[in-house]
Amino acid sequence: MNEPVDLVSGFVRLRVDFGYDGTDFNGWAKQPGLRTVEGSILDALKLVFDHDENSFGLVVAGRTDAGVHARNSVLHLDLTPAQIKRLGRYSSPSMFEGAIRDRLNNILDDDIRVCSVTVAPEGFDARFAAIHRRYRYRIADAVSVKDPVEARHTLWTRKPLDLLEMQAAALELYGLNDFAAFCKPRPFATTIRNLRQVTVRRRTDENQVIEVELLADAFCHNMVRSIVGALIAVGEGRADRQVIASKLASGSREGSFKVVSPRGLTLMEIGYPEPALMAQQVENAKALRSIDDEVED
Amino acid sequence: MNEPVDLVSGFVRLRVDFGYDGTDFNGWAKQPGLRTVEGSILDALKLVFDHDENSFGLVVAGRTDAGVHARNSVLHLDLTPAQIKRLGRYSSPSMFEGAIRDRLNNILDDDIRVCSVTVAPEGFDARFAAIHRRYRYRIADAVSVKDPVEARHTLWTRKPLDLLEMQAAALELYGLNDFAAFCKPRPFATTIRNLRQVTVRRRTDENQVIEVELLADAFCHNMVRSIVGALIAVGEGRADRQVIASKLASGSREGSFKVVSPRGLTLMEIGYPEPALMAQQVENAKALRSIDDEVED
Repeated sequence: MNEPVDLVSGFVRLRVDFGYDGTDFNGWAKQPGLRTVEGSILDALKLVFDHDENSFGLVVAGRTDAGVHARNSVLHLDLTPAQIKRLGRYSSPSMFEGAIRDRLNNILDDDIRVCSVTVAPEGFDARFAAIHRRYRYRIADAVSVKDPVEARHTLWTRKPLDLLEMQAAALELYGLNDFAAFCKPRPFATTIRNLRQVTVRRRTDENQVIEVELLADAFCHNMVRSIVGALIAVGEGRADRQVIASKLASGSREGSFKVVSPRGLTLMEIGYPEPALMAQQVENAKALRSIDDEVED
Repeated sequence: MNEPVDLVSGFVRLRVDFGYDGTDFNGWAKQPGLRTVEGSILDALKLVFDHDENSFGLVVAGRTDAGVHARNSVLHLDLTPAQIKRLGRYSSPSMFEGAIRDRLNNILDDDIRVCSVTVAPEGFDARFAAIHRRYRYRIADAVSVKDPVEARHTLWTRKPLDLLEMQAAALELYGLNDFAAFCKPRPFATTIRNLRQVTVRRRTDENQVIEVELLADAFCHNMVRSIVGALIAVGEGRADRQVIASKLASGSREGSFKVVSPRGLTLMEIGYPEPALMAQQVENAKALRSIDDEVED
């Protein structure tokens, strides 16, 4: 990464880390006439780089549904030499990267923010190089303070939740499983995922809010919100860990638990391997998941 | 508190604890045609208790400016026997209190929430019985993550802030002082306040946000935002603790530091004495502060 712009191969791939408050967006994907995260980012890129470009080859790690938030999502895009030229000259890669970040943030509204822009390492792919995604679901139950300042990213429920029962039920979902019973299916797409962490805890600071965190290689559509719906049923005493285990084994969405509101859901982090392992990870992920398997939660 | 309704004296005083996200309110005080916190609470009270009543003798502990938030503010109101009768009969005071809380919350939007309703102890006055107010100001500087999910209640600044210098300067403001240099003055109102705590810390959890917390017997208008503006100047190296000490001693707003945005400011807590000391505290506070001295931040 000695040169910010690789003029030999003719393009440079940027990695963009960004977050958003999803409340006032109609989800990630660009839609005509609607305010979406992708649409807002593309509009900002057009002002910075190229007024005629409409896609920039934008690829994102997590395509969230309407109302879902992100603390740190990741996308990549490829710039042509002409687009880079519009930026002017910079004396170092970090100044080049910082200038793009600042220009984008100057254009974007406060409910979407670019954390960093970096020239991506060889073989980087925001979606297929990802080795894990971490989501958090926040719930204020009868014990928590219902803090209006946190209302936009916290589900409010009336009953108290039994966290020990929820954590026990969550253990039934651990590991490599077919999550068909907890996913909105898509044709030709696998629903097998490796759920590597599920923790249920009550924060001990001021508002005593419950946080359910899930970490997996990837998530299928509605998977986090389906699992959290099932765990809330357990926490309220309407189901137990055996019911969750049977549901998972059934592979069927028939009579499923509620898919809870997007309000409490935040994409927290995308994990990537060391640069040397990047290309292999991309190969593996492409073999596992079809190109139609696009919406992840 | 054996009986929820004191029908002998003819009225019951309620203490209401509540919070709000101030972003979409035009401050506390009722104003015709504008959405305000007081206006929203009065509208909800009218639906629950009395369609013809317009004030309910509402008295609040902290009248916040437009855009300022509250995690836990406190108000009191007095209900007549006729108003109480509209509620129906309850078998215990706590059911009576819980029913009022739930009915108000069913009417109020999610950016304002009643935490609790209780029959107030003898001599309680939300404003004059208060022995302290605690405010928090959140700042995301160059080191913090600018998290859009927290954007509505966090000020974003570009430069890194020196927290040690800020804390040292804050010490100059400690104790019983005339804060005229840090207040928007009001005629016939004292600007002497007892600032009992000022802490400047960076949170060690995910977003590394700076929190400035101030605790005083009461605050005068714009006092927290003026002090935070001065501390930010210190944190950025534009002033030092000697400048802050001189400014305080000058008693003048001439050439003052910026009054920072309401966005980062939250009223966290109102402190009250034990019930036995309530009446004495009300006497003391009324003697200290004139009735014109109404806006506290």
